[in-house]
Amino acid sequence: MKLASLKSGGRDGTLVVVSRDLRHCRPVPAIARCLQAALEDWDACEPQLRQVYEALNSGVFPDPLPFAPQACASPLPRAYQWADGSAYINHVELVRRARGAELPASFYSDPLMYQGGSDSFIGPCDDVVASPEWGVDFEAEVAVVTGDVSMGADADAAARSIRLVMLVNDVSLRHLIPAELAKGFGFFQSKPASAFSPVAVTPDELGSAWRGAKLHLPLLVELNGKPFGRPDAGTDMTFDFGQLIAHLAKTREAEAGTIVGSGTVSNKQGSLWGSSIENGGVGYCCLAELRMYETIEAGKPTTPFMQPGDTVRIEMLDAEGRSIFGAIENRVCGLSHPGC
Amino acid sequence: MKLASLKSGGRDGTLVVVSRDLRHCRPVPAIARCLQAALEDWDACEPQLRQVYEALNSGVFPDPLPFAPQACASPLPRAYQWADGSAYINHVELVRRARGAELPASFYSDPLMYQGGSDSFIGPCDDVVASPEWGVDFEAEVAVVTGDVSMGADADAAARSIRLVMLVNDVSLRHLIPAELAKGFGFFQSKPASAFSPVAVTPDELGSAWRGAKLHLPLLVELNGKPFGRPDAGTDMTFDFGQLIAHLAKTREAEAGTIVGSGTVSNKQGSLWGSSIENGGVGYCCLAELRMYETIEAGKPTTPFMQPGDTVRIEMLDAEGRSIFGAIENRVCGLSHPGC
Repeated sequence: MKLASLKSGGRDGTLVVVSRDLRHCRPVPAIARCLQAALEDWDACEPQLRQVYEALNSGVFPDPLPFAPQACASPLPRAYQWADGSAYINHVELVRRARGAELPASFYSDPLMYQGGSDSFIGPCDDVVASPEWGVDFEAEVAVVTGDVSMGADADAAARSIRLVMLVNDVSLRHLIPAELAKGFGFFQSKPASAFSPVAVTPDELGSAWRGAKLHLPLLVELNGKPFGRPDAGTDMTFDFGQLIAHLAKTREAEAGTIVGSGTVSNKQGSLWGSSIENGGVGYCCLAELRMYETIEAGKPTTPFMQPGDTVRIEMLDAEGRSIFGAIENRVCGLSHPGC
Repeated sequence: MKLASLKSGGRDGTLVVVSRDLRHCRPVPAIARCLQAALEDWDACEPQLRQVYEALNSGVFPDPLPFAPQACASPLPRAYQWADGSAYINHVELVRRARGAELPASFYSDPLMYQGGSDSFIGPCDDVVASPEWGVDFEAEVAVVTGDVSMGADADAAARSIRLVMLVNDVSLRHLIPAELAKGFGFFQSKPASAFSPVAVTPDELGSAWRGAKLHLPLLVELNGKPFGRPDAGTDMTFDFGQLIAHLAKTREAEAGTIVGSGTVSNKQGSLWGSSIENGGVGYCCLAELRMYETIEAGKPTTPFMQPGDTVRIEMLDAEGRSIFGAIENRVCGLSHPGC
């Protein structure tokens, strides 16, 4: 089943069921006023939503609405929780190696996770409004949405709480990060509003690509229309989503509608210096990673961060080459030129 | 005006207007289904809520409901954002001094703030369920609830967005903090669900005690029925709430219903070794601070963290000695004895 939220209809948008081929959608106000409401009453809402989904796919509705990602908010336009892990240790190891530091062994047993701001996300095709001086970067990730999770839930129980899967651009302001992390309290200003894929899907929609609480498909990233990354999201993921959610719930409950991110998808490259797609590698899911390889190789990075007008596109295709979640497409706009 | 949320009525509770003397309350379902909804439509809801408040205070309602803090959830039982500052630098300076480190000068110009979990808070009189091995501590603070705040808002505009003021017990798991902060991503498991005061009040309710976007009254903390702290929340607050909100909104918008905390209230003590209330000082708003003074004086702390059965009470009185927000009263329960 595929779900989205149109921007119309207030802060939580309008919940729509989206056809498998992403061509059509159908508002379902009689089932739930928004996605958050459906998640809070999932056992009652899910079978009804699924009926609409099957009907939409079989084409029985006359004049179904065309589905336009540009009209979408993030599936949860705002959420009560957005907790982002960093499950691809290769990414973390690179950060450390680029500054000559060792990776603590505990990083392989104790997940990294930060609490993100969740009161408003930008839409999948919205602009990122930020000063280029802040070092604007994208981070392409996979994210899940949970039902209620008990405090102390183990990884298996946590994995069973997963209701939906989506993609995310965890926008990051790299030049604000060092000073912020040096203060010891983690990210804050350096993590502005994230953007999620137009569509969130139930795990069954992913077929055999969803196994072991990981999504085993390449995550496709384009920068200004050129391929930039295609690492497999199921490879080199040290912690699966069950483990990430269990980490979150160790000392507190998590409520329905909690979003948990994978962290920047990152595969180990054949070469110590990394490898771009042009050179036959899997490329990268953020500019920082390429810049770290550049630093390791040449002592300093040469690729700039995003400038006003630059656009990142994040998508995932199924085995038949069809877009699963629709594409995130975020263009950067400077503060003084909100219209770019 | 004073507002609260009864636990009954689902995840967002039932919004009630509370009389100034905290004796009575009145549900207002015709005005807003919950406090979050009122905050999102504040210009329309606020005058109607105020009418109910005046009528409740003047005693015109026959058989008003008695107000029972034990029946309350936190005023926002869950929120889209809970961002906690650390505006009392004395507290931060002590942490550093206890481990022999210097305080960076930038800490006086750049606020510390972390993103807290907000998907579910415990109620003002609920138990804190936690393992005593985690080092359970309280942190008594002041918090505000905002309306919508534009990205880049200055401190004055940010201060004008303040809709409500309340108290908070920012429960902290001290023994989990060092390893968590060492990972560099800030607090996560070490900050479980917080508890807010039974009642949130509009700033006008505080009279002259609310000025310069600070609350100038002693914050009263009792541990197991004995006075433990009474520092003035308006003293030694390096950043006012306008500055804290502006910090939050530097790189992103903040949506209505955002909660911003002051950080542990802490006054400079006359003595380098601190001073308990028994010794004529203002005491402390968390156990960690007393333990830091003990460490500075004797090389190690002697006061233990909270044990199962221990109760902290946090309250604030007006000039006439009347409780403004009602009292937070949280008892600690161990994981294996949820009923203590």
